[in-house]
Amino acid sequence: MPTFSHPDFAAQHLAAAPDARFEAAPADGVLPEGFFSTTNLPTYVRIGGRWRMPREPRMDASLVLDAEGELWVKEPRRVRKGERVAVGYAEDGSEGIFVHTAAFLGDSEEGEFKFMTSEVSREKPIDYSLMASLLLDERDRGGYPVWVTGPALVHSRARADMTWFIANGFVGALLAGNAVAVHDIEASIFGTTLGMTRTGEATSGGHGLHMRAINKVRAAGSIARAVEQGVITDGIMHACVVHAVPFVLTGSIRDDGPLPDVITDAIEGQEAMKRHTVKATMAVLVATALHAIATGNMLPAFVTESDGSLRELPTICVDSSEFVVSKLKDRGTHQAFGVVTNAQDFMHILRLYVEREQAARAGSGRPGDAARGAAPRVAAAARK
Amino acid sequence: MPTFSHPDFAAQHLAAAPDARFEAAPADGVLPEGFFSTTNLPTYVRIGGRWRMPREPRMDASLVLDAEGELWVKEPRRVRKGERVAVGYAEDGSEGIFVHTAAFLGDSEEGEFKFMTSEVSREKPIDYSLMASLLLDERDRGGYPVWVTGPALVHSRARADMTWFIANGFVGALLAGNAVAVHDIEASIFGTTLGMTRTGEATSGGHGLHMRAINKVRAAGSIARAVEQGVITDGIMHACVVHAVPFVLTGSIRDDGPLPDVITDAIEGQEAMKRHTVKATMAVLVATALHAIATGNMLPAFVTESDGSLRELPTICVDSSEFVVSKLKDRGTHQAFGVVTNAQDFMHILRLYVEREQAARAGSGRPGDAARGAAPRVAAAARK
Amino acid sequence: MPTFSHPDFAAQHLAAAPDARFEAAPADGVLPEGFFSTTNLPTYVRIGGRWRMPREPRMDASLVLDAEGELWVKEPRRVRKGERVAVGYAEDGSEGIFVHTAAFLGDSEEGEFKFMTSEVSREKPIDYSLMASLLLDERDRGGYPVWVTGPALVHSRARADMTWFIANGFVGALLAGNAVAVHDIEASIFGTTLGMTRTGEATSGGHGLHMRAINKVRAAGSIARAVEQGVITDGIMHACVVHAVPFVLTGSIRDDGPLPDVITDAIEGQEAMKRHTVKATMAVLVATALHAIATGNMLPAFVTESDGSLRELPTICVDSSEFVVSKLKDRGTHQAFGVVTNAQDFMHILRLYVEREQAARAGSGRPGDAARGAAPRVAAAARK
Amino acid sequence: MPTFSHPDFAAQHLAAAPDARFEAAPADGVLPEGFFSTTNLPTYVRIGGRWRMPREPRMDASLVLDAEGELWVKEPRRVRKGERVAVGYAEDGSEGIFVHTAAFLGDSEEGEFKFMTSEVSREKPIDYSLMASLLLDERDRGGYPVWVTGPALVHSRARADMTWFIANGFVGALLAGNAVAVHDIEASIFGTTLGMTRTGEATSGGHGLHMRAINKVRAAGSIARAVEQGVITDGIMHACVVHAVPFVLTGSIRDDGPLPDVITDAIEGQEAMKRHTVKATMAVLVATALHAIATGNMLPAFVTESDGSLRELPTICVDSSEFVVSKLKDRGTHQAFGVVTNAQDFMHILRLYVEREQAARAGSGRPGDAARGAAPRVAAAARK
Repeated sequence: MPTFSHPDFAAQHLAAAPDARFEAAPADGVLPEGFFSTTNLPTYVRIGGRWRMPREPRMDASLVLDAEGELWVKEPRRVRKGERVAVGYAEDGSEGIFVHTAAFLGDSEEGEFKFMTSEVSREKPIDYSLMASLLLDERDRGGYPVWVTGPALVHSRARADMTWFIANGFVGALLAGNAVAVHDIEASIFGTTLGMTRTGEATSGGHGLHMRAINKVRAAGSIARAVEQGVITDGIMHACVVHAVPFVLTGSIRDDGPLPDVITDAIEGQEAMKRHTVKATMAVLVATALHAIATGNMLPAFVTESDGSLRELPTICVDSSEFVVSKLKDRGTHQAFGVVTNAQDFMHILRLYVEREQAARAGSGRPGDAARGAAPRVAAAARK
Repeated sequence: MPTFSHPDFAAQHLAAAPDARFEAAPADGVLPEGFFSTTNLPTYVRIGGRWRMPREPRMDASLVLDAEGELWVKEPRRVRKGERVAVGYAEDGSEGIFVHTAAFLGDSEEGEFKFMTSEVSREKPIDYSLMASLLLDERDRGGYPVWVTGPALVHSRARADMTWFIANGFVGALLAGNAVAVHDIEASIFGTTLGMTRTGEATSGGHGLHMRAINKVRAAGSIARAVEQGVITDGIMHACVVHAVPFVLTGSIRDDGPLPDVITDAIEGQEAMKRHTVKATMAVLVATALHAIATGNMLPAFVTESDGSLRELPTICVDSSEFVVSKLKDRGTHQAFGVVTNAQDFMHILRLYVEREQAARAGSGRPGDAARGAAPRVAAAARK
Repeated sequence: MPTFSHPDFAAQHLAAAPDARFEAAPADGVLPEGFFSTTNLPTYVRIGGRWRMPREPRMDASLVLDAEGELWVKEPRRVRKGERVAVGYAEDGSEGIFVHTAAFLGDSEEGEFKFMTSEVSREKPIDYSLMASLLLDERDRGGYPVWVTGPALVHSRARADMTWFIANGFVGALLAGNAVAVHDIEASIFGTTLGMTRTGEATSGGHGLHMRAINKVRAAGSIARAVEQGVITDGIMHACVVHAVPFVLTGSIRDDGPLPDVITDAIEGQEAMKRHTVKATMAVLVATALHAIATGNMLPAFVTESDGSLRELPTICVDSSEFVVSKLKDRGTHQAFGVVTNAQDFMHILRLYVEREQAARAGSGRPGDAARGAAPRVAAAARK
Repeated sequence: MPTFSHPDFAAQHLAAAPDARFEAAPADGVLPEGFFSTTNLPTYVRIGGRWRMPREPRMDASLVLDAEGELWVKEPRRVRKGERVAVGYAEDGSEGIFVHTAAFLGDSEEGEFKFMTSEVSREKPIDYSLMASLLLDERDRGGYPVWVTGPALVHSRARADMTWFIANGFVGALLAGNAVAVHDIEASIFGTTLGMTRTGEATSGGHGLHMRAINKVRAAGSIARAVEQGVITDGIMHACVVHAVPFVLTGSIRDDGPLPDVITDAIEGQEAMKRHTVKATMAVLVATALHAIATGNMLPAFVTESDGSLRELPTICVDSSEFVVSKLKDRGTHQAFGVVTNAQDFMHILRLYVEREQAARAGSGRPGDAARGAAPRVAAAARK
């Protein structure tokens, strides 16, 4: 276990520090304004020119100097009216209180005790405005956003939203596996995915429907021909064909079928994907560990603009658990921005925000000004 | 390991079954329409009056009778043009193919091989229309929906949406812990939660802000008084006070503070919660394992209407992982309907659907008719 | 929302039921032995020949008939000495108390209110004895256990344990992807996996080590030749080569390299896997969603013994979260037995139990007698 | 989105850098030894005294200078025999290749591109030797390890192992909630937990067994008296009573009962816990979010030795998901060391390692020498 040295109190900024200030608690269980709030790290308080450590250290508490001159860490609820409570915000000694952060947290935490520093967490807010703005910016400047999706996006009800993004010019290329296309096509032909209805019910005889969907496309010869022949009438693959958005379907060993368009050789599949990743100016990875990591592997962390300047390649990774995003980062895709949520909900809200921002830009002629031109209810929502 | 008997082929429905029908594959890798799609269970095919088991059984494949009279399970892609493929949908022998389901799946699967039968999964679609409709129905008939929330709802950006539900009459009572109120009040006073900004950044000095927020409320004496004094100016607790929606804040051993309104004794806390659960006609549990299970413990699975009739008590449980919902069911709250998603997104979309449905009901005078009276863009969205 | 009818009290078993029995509580907060413990379902108590529903229904409580003849559901802690508490265990009315289970739970719960009925949960005990016994049985009778593993098994410290299972005859065939072999070989050559040391530290320059490992094998021409040439000196792939255990490495689009032995075409990969799954008499799937589902797809749920009799094909699925096991079941592999744990720990304990059981069988000539004679092999295990 | 400047090539270490070296690939798809392995960050290669960026940047690939003098990032499998491949390990320019790390990763990644840098992951190896060593060290020097456990530990089969740790002097105090004691006592009296057997089966009538267990202890008056009276005959609480290990059971709003020993007031509960945390020299937090965070809140990150020196307070946090550990860190317990695994398996292996290390220390008189003399105690373990 690591051991630590006490700070060097002869150092200039500590030697010159003033005594800590104490103020009386205004009431039982109420602290004076500006009280010092403790951490769980070694803490030194200057009293009468001497640095002292309080007893019973813990975080989220106050520093109390009792009548006997003893210094305690005390929970605010236990402080009585009139007790002397240390005040100050500084943790660097400049107000007489020094928190020995460096020894414990090192440089990685920037030398400060903080909460909520984890990189990926379901407790972090999701900034849909920013993502919507990025997508519109990319479309406006002719960027090439690569979307990479997993089958959960189709099982849930995000299929219509994905179709909308394709139809409206937000998708440079779609990279996915056989399953995404199979579920999407089963949904178009039979209204189910793996036999599950849109309300989540397993249907009788449903276990064979994806095989029947595949069979129809194999009979047609390709997805594009199945669209032409009216076998596939809506959905993600339909939108790609109709709007001429390129797609790459790569095979995996869990594939049924596969569909005729699937590239079954992994190396050929990587080459096909790379023809799009080398052009990518943004990446949106939704509900897929395998394809997200595959894409992350071949994606630079940056975009080289035509003038030679560099910018980060925005990489959004959406998954139900923190694990996939962490794994992606652990494989080197440090620039990934994690969104821990359900694919259905993500797609639905992202579309809503894009629609709002689009309307705002159309109305005002100015980007980033979503609140204005929108309808009253939407405007109210936008203020949140 | 369990062993199984072969079916009783002398039984009426099997003895009287016809031979299975076979049709020629129309092309390489393409099956005839109506092909039989296999499962992984013991399967018997009647050929020449005799029940036979195919070789190399697996799911998602076809039954092929080869030139030598050998019967195979064969992946569709491996079937050649002209090969004889079994057709039929029935698995009960009535078309000459019998799947021995009962032995393996028993009654619990209703005697049929199906996919997607798990009760709780992030891959299941979320029916926001139904939930929105339920909430409006409850409000219309003067029901008493109990909302139970955890702190993740406040860390993320769902705070404004929760406030909206309170302000608009959808909340009979709010049951939560100290942390929900503390984060909500910190957000109102300082714009952060545990020092994290609305964009997810940890702020310098932020670790003490929740303690400062608590201190201000303790100084005021109660949440209601802090609202009156203008210390708390918006958010969830503010809305409860302003709209006279009762709330119960119960304590836990991880509490900081606590706030003056918190009932720190668990038994007293349970009594206070129960004063609301006995009146509950619906329950919405968001992002909290502890409080969701506590509420589930004291909630009947049913509502007794004033005429003595019974109906299920709709119980929605929202969490980022399947585990909390399964745990709730494992503790007896079988009626819980699980939604596996992020609290921020859930609240945001639920509100959107309630607003749409509300507008539709207002416009048409008829419930359930959301597409009509809504604004054009919303109508387009509703058609999805 | 579903509504429910009250039960038919004219039915024979309810019409003939006795009145419920009540006994006095022996002390404050203490119930009489044999008290009736409530559920959250509609409950009817026969008093004076009439079926009545208690007030304030909830689970985990008692039925109290108060002095005014009012019937309450009351938490045990609130019961006072001398109060009359219903006794009995039967919920079918035969002791005067009827729980209306069928209406709510249907057949799927076998008509009884129970806790802990979820199929897959980290809260379920893991029966290592049973699994160890199965593995030894398979080896003893010349079975063909197919092992399917993901890379987490190698990142963690389960590599040595997997090697042991291969070396000791418990593995019929190993099915995996490129990553398992790459990490295993990097560990043999450089002592790291993706540059991470055995103590979990990321090393300087480590990000290239898996590429260097692949390069060395590509230079050798194959894994077997790299073993022969002394490039690979220990680990999983080494053990497969040395002990002539067949392995199939199938490609995926996230592969680096790949290694020369990897079958990059998904269809060819499936054929290669199937050559082993058709012979499988047991399956162990560890820490892999992709390969577990791929194998589940092609695995029958049963084994046909040489005498034509059928038994279940034991299928163990190990993962850190409930989701993978549920997903596997949702794709039709109903027979899968889920173990929710860490791959490292699973392998370590399973090996320990197999060693014990093996020693017991060797020592006593009797299966299942693990306690005896275990010392020598356990000591060997301790040296790892 | 962030933009970045190119590095300052006039800076001393870049201006003075040599040209990059290239070597011929020895065979198709095989790179020269010492090849440079790329990252996804902006990379500059010095050729003819000029810094150039390669085309098609991606990670895990090589740098190839083609016959036309064009510089490419190329996957190793695509490199042909004789092509010129950059060699070198340095990324700081000193061998003619500069990776522009600082711009992207900043200080937080120590200026180097690495894999596997996440703090908490199920893919990280678990160092049981270290933990066992720490526990023995604490016992040897009279430390005060505080154990904090959740109910999953009792549902699974870790109950016997926890009992062993208590009985053998490794537990200074046990901090838990009502549920841990209720499940433990139900297991002692009825052999079930929440009605679930040791093999994971839900039993008929089982849903009331925890209430019957509580009732028996309430009748006895306390856990200690129930032990004295022979009502509780084994398990965790029994061991605490018999071995005089202090325990604190704190209440929560989801409690049934509660047991007589439970402190139902959260503030009193915190005071009771703190009487132990102020003495803690180590903390082991297993399978509990609520109690782990509560304990983390009141635990200093350090121990002050009697000579005034400081060392880290070893804090082990075990949970099935990364989330609890991240949450604990996000609440300021930065020193927590996360173990992502199942509670049953953790306890089982930890005990095994402690037994081995203990035997080694006893046998050899030297710590850390676990291999020797381990037989007797391990055999005892095998009897469980």
